[in-house]
Amino acid sequence: MRGRPRDPDLPARVLDAALAEYARSGWAGFTMHAVAGRAGVGKSSMYLRWPTKEQLLVDAIDAYTRPLVVDHDTGSLRGDVLALASSLLAHFLDPMGWVTVRIAVDAAVESVDLGGFHERIVTKHNDAAQRIVDRAIGRGELPAGVDGRPLLEGLFGGVLLHTLALPPSEHAAARTDLAAHVTPLVDLLLRGVGPAATPAVG
Amino acid sequence: MRGRPRDPDLPARVLDAALAEYARSGWAGFTMHAVAGRAGVGKSSMYLRWPTKEQLLVDAIDAYTRPLVVDHDTGSLRGDVLALASSLLAHFLDPMGWVTVRIAVDAAVESVDLGGFHERIVTKHNDAAQRIVDRAIGRGELPAGVDGRPLLEGLFGGVLLHTLALPPSEHAAARTDLAAHVTPLVDLLLRGVGPAATPAVG
Repeated sequence: MRGRPRDPDLPARVLDAALAEYARSGWAGFTMHAVAGRAGVGKSSMYLRWPTKEQLLVDAIDAYTRPLVVDHDTGSLRGDVLALASSLLAHFLDPMGWVTVRIAVDAAVESVDLGGFHERIVTKHNDAAQRIVDRAIGRGELPAGVDGRPLLEGLFGGVLLHTLALPPSEHAAARTDLAAHVTPLVDLLLRGVGPAATPAVG
Repeated sequence: MRGRPRDPDLPARVLDAALAEYARSGWAGFTMHAVAGRAGVGKSSMYLRWPTKEQLLVDAIDAYTRPLVVDHDTGSLRGDVLALASSLLAHFLDPMGWVTVRIAVDAAVESVDLGGFHERIVTKHNDAAQRIVDRAIGRGELPAGVDGRPLLEGLFGGVLLHTLALPPSEHAAARTDLAAHVTPLVDLLLRGVGPAATPAVG
């Protein structure tokens, strides 16, 4: 017998194993050897596709964040932002989604060099979320030239902190009632960014 | 010679070593053995004070988050929230402060049981931040009974996301201009929570 039979499931199995291994070991213990062992594949077939463990991890994050819909188009700013916040909360409540948060937090320090992470994940999500703001400007719901960045930082960050403050025993209940969990934050942020609001005086 | 001489610097040296070791190895590689080696102390003197590595880590986080002032009292809501946001950004831009974020994110999954972490860190900070809201109610800047939670989640989370999105090469510049980095988020959140604002219509 020459070589192994083709294994069409190999990429998906390796990407699953990569995130599971990261969840167990963190960046410090994340090795091609450990991922290969967990996925039950040979290291050589992994290296053909992913020459470095950084590339493997970026691909794994990419695969897991793809189902996270960021650019919702419901016809109104509030609908879009509520849908985005609910998607984010569902993503963070998923153990594998939370692993992608842990990786992002680890990757913010210089000792972890995830080349491509910033462009492929952070920029992609920011651009998609910015389209929600652009459509709201187009509909006249927001003034032209409004800065979407503090809105999006408060939204992504606020949902992240909400998840962080939630005891694991309440995760299951939160999954069934996403909108109730995110509505207070969404409405606060929309009042803050809305054209009707006036700046606070210090 | 019986025993070692007393070493008054031992606790501080061990707590420093604990966070540095976590920064390098994450939770999976965080062991009493590794911390003792880094601190240059015997494991037996560590176990006298910290029977488990969980307790050691909670104490180390406690020591490092103590300089983070949360309950600023400047005389106005905007002053207090700007001061809190600036303190948070300075804390997150400090590599050891960022380690405490990484630990919090790791500890949100059930496989890492940091008993006492939630009470000693999360609850302590939430209570201190809530006092900013309570004083604003007392001054008439916010309506009685306003829910401070989305404001504080948006604030802590928004500053965290801002740090996450900042390339490490820009960290030094951000440290010298904290207020400019946090003001857009703070003003958006204050417009959102302020009594003048009206709820957005969906």
